[in-house]
Amino acid sequence: MTDPRGSLQGPVDATRIPRFAGPATFARLPRADEVEHVDVAVVGVPFDSGVSYRPGARFGPGHVRASSKLLRPYNPALDVSPFAELQIADAGDIAVNPFDIEDAIKTVELAARDFAARGTRLLTIGGDHTIALPLLRAAAAAHGPVAVVHFDAHLDTWDTYFGQPYTHGTPFRRASEEGLLDPTRCLHVGIRGPLYSEQDLTDDGVLGFQVVHSDDYQDATVASVVERMRARLGDGPVYVSVDIDVLDPAHAPGTGTPEAGGLTSRELLGTLRGLVGLNVVGADIVEVAPAYDHAELTGVAAAHTAYELLSVLARNRRDGG
Amino acid sequence: MTDPRGSLQGPVDATRIPRFAGPATFARLPRADEVEHVDVAVVGVPFDSGVSYRPGARFGPGHVRASSKLLRPYNPALDVSPFAELQIADAGDIAVNPFDIEDAIKTVELAARDFAARGTRLLTIGGDHTIALPLLRAAAAAHGPVAVVHFDAHLDTWDTYFGQPYTHGTPFRRASEEGLLDPTRCLHVGIRGPLYSEQDLTDDGVLGFQVVHSDDYQDATVASVVERMRARLGDGPVYVSVDIDVLDPAHAPGTGTPEAGGLTSRELLGTLRGLVGLNVVGADIVEVAPAYDHAELTGVAAAHTAYELLSVLARNRRDGG
Amino acid sequence: MTDPRGSLQGPVDATRIPRFAGPATFARLPRADEVEHVDVAVVGVPFDSGVSYRPGARFGPGHVRASSKLLRPYNPALDVSPFAELQIADAGDIAVNPFDIEDAIKTVELAARDFAARGTRLLTIGGDHTIALPLLRAAAAAHGPVAVVHFDAHLDTWDTYFGQPYTHGTPFRRASEEGLLDPTRCLHVGIRGPLYSEQDLTDDGVLGFQVVHSDDYQDATVASVVERMRARLGDGPVYVSVDIDVLDPAHAPGTGTPEAGGLTSRELLGTLRGLVGLNVVGADIVEVAPAYDHAELTGVAAAHTAYELLSVLARNRRDGG
Amino acid sequence: MTDPRGSLQGPVDATRIPRFAGPATFARLPRADEVEHVDVAVVGVPFDSGVSYRPGARFGPGHVRASSKLLRPYNPALDVSPFAELQIADAGDIAVNPFDIEDAIKTVELAARDFAARGTRLLTIGGDHTIALPLLRAAAAAHGPVAVVHFDAHLDTWDTYFGQPYTHGTPFRRASEEGLLDPTRCLHVGIRGPLYSEQDLTDDGVLGFQVVHSDDYQDATVASVVERMRARLGDGPVYVSVDIDVLDPAHAPGTGTPEAGGLTSRELLGTLRGLVGLNVVGADIVEVAPAYDHAELTGVAAAHTAYELLSVLARNRRDGG
Amino acid sequence: MTDPRGSLQGPVDATRIPRFAGPATFARLPRADEVEHVDVAVVGVPFDSGVSYRPGARFGPGHVRASSKLLRPYNPALDVSPFAELQIADAGDIAVNPFDIEDAIKTVELAARDFAARGTRLLTIGGDHTIALPLLRAAAAAHGPVAVVHFDAHLDTWDTYFGQPYTHGTPFRRASEEGLLDPTRCLHVGIRGPLYSEQDLTDDGVLGFQVVHSDDYQDATVASVVERMRARLGDGPVYVSVDIDVLDPAHAPGTGTPEAGGLTSRELLGTLRGLVGLNVVGADIVEVAPAYDHAELTGVAAAHTAYELLSVLARNRRDGG
Amino acid sequence: MTDPRGSLQGPVDATRIPRFAGPATFARLPRADEVEHVDVAVVGVPFDSGVSYRPGARFGPGHVRASSKLLRPYNPALDVSPFAELQIADAGDIAVNPFDIEDAIKTVELAARDFAARGTRLLTIGGDHTIALPLLRAAAAAHGPVAVVHFDAHLDTWDTYFGQPYTHGTPFRRASEEGLLDPTRCLHVGIRGPLYSEQDLTDDGVLGFQVVHSDDYQDATVASVVERMRARLGDGPVYVSVDIDVLDPAHAPGTGTPEAGGLTSRELLGTLRGLVGLNVVGADIVEVAPAYDHAELTGVAAAHTAYELLSVLARNRRDGG
Repeated sequence: MTDPRGSLQGPVDATRIPRFAGPATFARLPRADEVEHVDVAVVGVPFDSGVSYRPGARFGPGHVRASSKLLRPYNPALDVSPFAELQIADAGDIAVNPFDIEDAIKTVELAARDFAARGTRLLTIGGDHTIALPLLRAAAAAHGPVAVVHFDAHLDTWDTYFGQPYTHGTPFRRASEEGLLDPTRCLHVGIRGPLYSEQDLTDDGVLGFQVVHSDDYQDATVASVVERMRARLGDGPVYVSVDIDVLDPAHAPGTGTPEAGGLTSRELLGTLRGLVGLNVVGADIVEVAPAYDHAELTGVAAAHTAYELLSVLARNRRDGG
Repeated sequence: MTDPRGSLQGPVDATRIPRFAGPATFARLPRADEVEHVDVAVVGVPFDSGVSYRPGARFGPGHVRASSKLLRPYNPALDVSPFAELQIADAGDIAVNPFDIEDAIKTVELAARDFAARGTRLLTIGGDHTIALPLLRAAAAAHGPVAVVHFDAHLDTWDTYFGQPYTHGTPFRRASEEGLLDPTRCLHVGIRGPLYSEQDLTDDGVLGFQVVHSDDYQDATVASVVERMRARLGDGPVYVSVDIDVLDPAHAPGTGTPEAGGLTSRELLGTLRGLVGLNVVGADIVEVAPAYDHAELTGVAAAHTAYELLSVLARNRRDGG
Repeated sequence: MTDPRGSLQGPVDATRIPRFAGPATFARLPRADEVEHVDVAVVGVPFDSGVSYRPGARFGPGHVRASSKLLRPYNPALDVSPFAELQIADAGDIAVNPFDIEDAIKTVELAARDFAARGTRLLTIGGDHTIALPLLRAAAAAHGPVAVVHFDAHLDTWDTYFGQPYTHGTPFRRASEEGLLDPTRCLHVGIRGPLYSEQDLTDDGVLGFQVVHSDDYQDATVASVVERMRARLGDGPVYVSVDIDVLDPAHAPGTGTPEAGGLTSRELLGTLRGLVGLNVVGADIVEVAPAYDHAELTGVAAAHTAYELLSVLARNRRDGG
Repeated sequence: MTDPRGSLQGPVDATRIPRFAGPATFARLPRADEVEHVDVAVVGVPFDSGVSYRPGARFGPGHVRASSKLLRPYNPALDVSPFAELQIADAGDIAVNPFDIEDAIKTVELAARDFAARGTRLLTIGGDHTIALPLLRAAAAAHGPVAVVHFDAHLDTWDTYFGQPYTHGTPFRRASEEGLLDPTRCLHVGIRGPLYSEQDLTDDGVLGFQVVHSDDYQDATVASVVERMRARLGDGPVYVSVDIDVLDPAHAPGTGTPEAGGLTSRELLGTLRGLVGLNVVGADIVEVAPAYDHAELTGVAAAHTAYELLSVLARNRRDGG
Repeated sequence: MTDPRGSLQGPVDATRIPRFAGPATFARLPRADEVEHVDVAVVGVPFDSGVSYRPGARFGPGHVRASSKLLRPYNPALDVSPFAELQIADAGDIAVNPFDIEDAIKTVELAARDFAARGTRLLTIGGDHTIALPLLRAAAAAHGPVAVVHFDAHLDTWDTYFGQPYTHGTPFRRASEEGLLDPTRCLHVGIRGPLYSEQDLTDDGVLGFQVVHSDDYQDATVASVVERMRARLGDGPVYVSVDIDVLDPAHAPGTGTPEAGGLTSRELLGTLRGLVGLNVVGADIVEVAPAYDHAELTGVAAAHTAYELLSVLARNRRDGG
Repeated sequence: MTDPRGSLQGPVDATRIPRFAGPATFARLPRADEVEHVDVAVVGVPFDSGVSYRPGARFGPGHVRASSKLLRPYNPALDVSPFAELQIADAGDIAVNPFDIEDAIKTVELAARDFAARGTRLLTIGGDHTIALPLLRAAAAAHGPVAVVHFDAHLDTWDTYFGQPYTHGTPFRRASEEGLLDPTRCLHVGIRGPLYSEQDLTDDGVLGFQVVHSDDYQDATVASVVERMRARLGDGPVYVSVDIDVLDPAHAPGTGTPEAGGLTSRELLGTLRGLVGLNVVGADIVEVAPAYDHAELTGVAAAHTAYELLSVLARNRRDGG
């Protein structure tokens, strides 16, 4: 049998196929293998062997896809129809070895380079934060050192854990050491909670990061945070990495290392819209652990996060970015 | 057996009957059939055949009642004791046909007109948003075209879905078409998330609505939102329709079409208090889907929503409204 | 992009693609549109507008697929490798109108006739039990009146509900009235719990059914139940309809009208294996309501149910059935 | 307002009022205050101050009522329509003091005596097992010493706990000491799990109990257990006390002191039917703790337990018992 | 066997013992019986016999400990390493009588006095709010009348409930009556929701309390709330009592008497940091009811609350407080 | 501070310390570091890096301990008081590297040998099934090749997975290859569900295993299964390995690779009691994954499993085994 649909773009029609039916792809978009060229691929990396506490992010990609069925085509906040402006398709999962972190990292890097070679940008759904490293390797290979805007409760610039250099707590230190980052333009957003020592912050600064704390949102406007963020990120290539635990556990219970005192989903989505016009070359959303989710709270938040990022890419395209 | 209580008003005494015991009515109030005259009836409409995604709001009325047992008599924020100022009673459920939407709508309309004929105002607990249409028909029959202040993540002014004109996504378009609304005074509050197209907003304006976005709460005070709201709603009759998904999923997981980035319950309750002095002729709270709720989060938020609305009605009575 | 795999059959390789990754199809099988000919299609019908109590079976097909990832290729109990003996593929969902039961029934019937015309047998994942009627229409169109072996807590031979003749409680009465059933060979298995009246049983017998009660399993062996079942079903075409509520709620909490005192999953699976050699022309598994499931208990039970049915079909093929 | 229904008996009509709507009474039966005479009252005792581990049974009565909406009028297993043979009504909750166990016991005893004085038998929904003592006091006051058939994982004949003589672990010791029990006819059913010491069993025998272990069901038929049970219970008055933890935690997760290795709901319901013809003078179902329940598993099991007990009472009435 | 560790201080090393392993103590700290002197003891009081609605806080201490495993040593917000500046140890649970509230209160008071006598300050994990009374008795015995800063949705200055003077709704009235409080310096923070009557507030003021409402956080900064709080609390001894229901149910579902419209965890943690420099002599965190929690949301919020309080104590020590 | 208790044995007194309070050790037993000699240590191995599907068993040890608080001292089924006959203590967790399976295996083996050297037998709580290999190495080092009686849904004798030889699906193949097993005496119990191929069974037999299927319990008595089991296991040293997924998912939802059609907890506990008199040299209970558990169903089943195994060891000691 062949699919009767010819030129495919955008979600299936919700007035013909109910939202609770139809393809299991992200936002019910076409599969990457159904279309000629893909501008932006949504791809899953079901991998959580790098976590230090609650595992389960290996089921993240499927969960975020299942939670994305309500996404509609037009984003009024950014006045853009991302699925119409760009050919966005679901490229399925990158299958990686759950028993060998370095092998898994290599597989992800190769796959990401492959997408880049075909002119496809990536929005990756994790999986744990370990996967940011190979994604940054591929991004830097294509664009040179990039700025990272990293949404997270945690710095993720620790060194090793049980002697293991590649874990979900270390990707940005490794990336910095490997020269993948532009140390004058990196930024954490949403940081909060206890650290191992004061040295953590010193090290983090040396590696090239500035910090917007979660508390900074308490008494400031989103617009002022965005302004500060844009000043730091500048005009060069920017990679966006969203650990869903940047949200308060109330908004994202389904994650591995929850910290109280986080962002609301409204703050996160508003901030992401502020990326319009920046040269976003890739993005990931990680650490969604469905076994701890409820009523798809975390999945829906992640799906909307993805939608805003796709909208930013579409606006940039339209605006000639 | 007959009930030993004589003249009944207000909740049963919590110092004699523990809050986890006693009648299953809303706030443990009298049943409507126990009292002579009812000023405001809390009535359930267990109906969810109009939903487009997660069903389950048919169990909403029972769930909100079960979650309302902690409501106490005095509202300090509005300095009013709603159950003392008004005879408020639980009128049970309007039993409607789950297999025939138009028949169900007719049943609700007739029941609502019946209450109006007896001088009883309604606070209706849904059920899905489809039921706003027959409730507005009854309200307009009694008061002429009304202003609607509609709290929701979604516009609910779409046209049809699978050819069906009466669903939970269309009540306010139908109401506008039927002339039930005053198009100079309607307002959505809490709107957010993607739409089908830019046309949705144009259509919505033509139907008579202005929009307060969820994001408007981010950097403005509740007082300023209220001011804007009151300016729009004016002095005529106002119908209040609260889709519980106006709240962020963190605050109301138990609903059918969750959208990230919503209001906090504190913002919603504060806004509702701002309705004091407006000519509120009826209200509904819809889309509570208990199968997706946890720890009665959504039920408690809905019960408090009801309580603030009842308090507004009581204050209006006392103030000569 | 095109799929690099050539001739596709059976699940993706679990030693290359972890079970928590890969396609979202049933058992990670090929999609029907990827292969030339399909012997047996697993198809979803996300529809629950015919339910009388807890809704939610519209999400059943996706949930059963997600719960089927652990199914391995070889069934030792029946000594058969179903995915090797037959080309089994996932045909996705039949998209039906959620607001018009008769329209939905028509859509399902047409789709089922279409599969039959292409020589494909169906294993349908519901959805609520309403869908058994159109599936039986298609089965009878191809094979003449069929025997039904109906696993369920309930008879589902009621007449109407709110005047509605097509609901999840009535498919087998309608089917009998329409002459789709061989009244000398039909059988309910797992019946228990209260009825409306004694007349229910009389009517049911007239419609062509005998009853194996859930209690019959208590003191008899599965083998003896199977023997009785086979004696009734005979040599003609047999349609198998499994309402997951045939299982005790402990084994299948995720369903709409739970009844205590049901079968264990071991009893159900053992009984299904007893169908080997019967002329099974189609099957459905219905009433999985994920919002009430926990830890995929119900999903896993349904997936295993499907696996045994597919194994029976494969054994029959191999044995020349 | 007055209720338009005249002579009330049995559940509301499910073809006019959907099962998810209507009164919150047990099985949607009339309230006791609506009818002239009540043969059997279903009454709740929301009390859990006597528990030694997980609390929460105070919410049991409401939960069992909510889980009883699917009960239909005719019991084919016993060929009886309990709600037609007897006037069965819901008498609401007995409100008791949560802070004073002895006061609570007194309140329950007085209420139970009051029902007895009006010729009403009781089916009580707890609450924790402490309440069996005052219910037995009232039963013995009316009928003399009674046989108790006690379904439970635990003996509940311990002496004191923290010096407190009245707890959920001691009702049957107190009842025996007070002469409320016929020591030649008492029986525990479903006992399993560890004890404090061998002495527990010796003491228990002295108090008048024999034991049917849960393991006895493993290799024996329900019929043989029933036979043994009937031989012990004899012809005199029998009080039935069902601690829902007699069921395996798989069948009844929502309870306070779960023990693995319990009965299935099919075994329990089958055993209860074996009480037909015995002189059952009262019954309770206790220890349903909804906070630990899922998908109403425990609530549904308790509702079916109640239904079988009511059916036994109805059959006895019809058979002249 | 003896523990090989010599001088013990601070959590076990997370690079040697994974956070999901190791001791079950709060923050994986030493036990009090392992060390010579304890500056601050974290102690549990598993008691919930004083609650008026949902019970279950008896399981609070274990739940908060289990949710505290992610706490790291350095608090950047207050620039302090609490476990290094102070010897903080887990003193286990105070075992109290669940059947006798007054006996339980006495046990807690004696234990608290005992800690005080050994120069150990207490951070107590409840348990319900009843336990604040004996803790205040011990605090006042050591320090004279104290200021209470009481974070809660409710006033907890009611008089009696079912005639019982010692419940979770009355500790601060009793404490005021007993002269334990400095009536010029007490403060509630986070109050919201309905009351019994206007008199509640009048009484509360007479007892010595001022009120910061939850709504006060809506349009004011945390800093301004802190300023107001510090002005009230002054220089004398301060006791901090945190009912976790001060948080919105979205942030703390696992509690007994939830009220919509509460604080975010970010607001609470920010406010607690504002206590630095005040003479904090003891603290409790109460009303965590795990049976209603999800994904440890409430447990994590409580653990972070404890961490900020410990950080305040450590900063005070360092600053010479 | 020192612990006031002198010679410690058995659980803390439940009449002085409520079961919901007190130490977090298994069954509230002493810690191994508190006592002179330990006959049997209950030890946790929080490790799940060897799993192929749902992770989370790293939280198993803490969960089983928390679920073991209701275990009482006397086992009437075996007429033994295990904690009195043997000094049983909780030895805490073996901390292992979550990022290096072989390193983790080595750590477990060394720890297990260490216990053996001190004359302590082990009851190990996993963790995933990978840990059976190092435990068998230690057992064989002490006792020579052992018989394994392996309770599981799965054979766990697969070869490699993603090239990794040490996973939760391979321990018994590795153990057989390493000569740790007596190939004439090994046995799987509870096997069910699909395999990769018929060859799996052939290989399994070559490695030394016979199979008792879950279905064998359906029509046979537990006694007959036990007889068959004992005939196979003989008089030599026996190691017992219980994968909790041997239970049906209804009885053990909290596990990683659930298979329908499993044992009831009553069947498992009854079978374990049949081990009395066999020379049991060690045991493990693995694959409890709390994130998927509900109401501690799986935890309680695992705790009872542990209790029966400890009872067998105690009976053997008393009987001179």
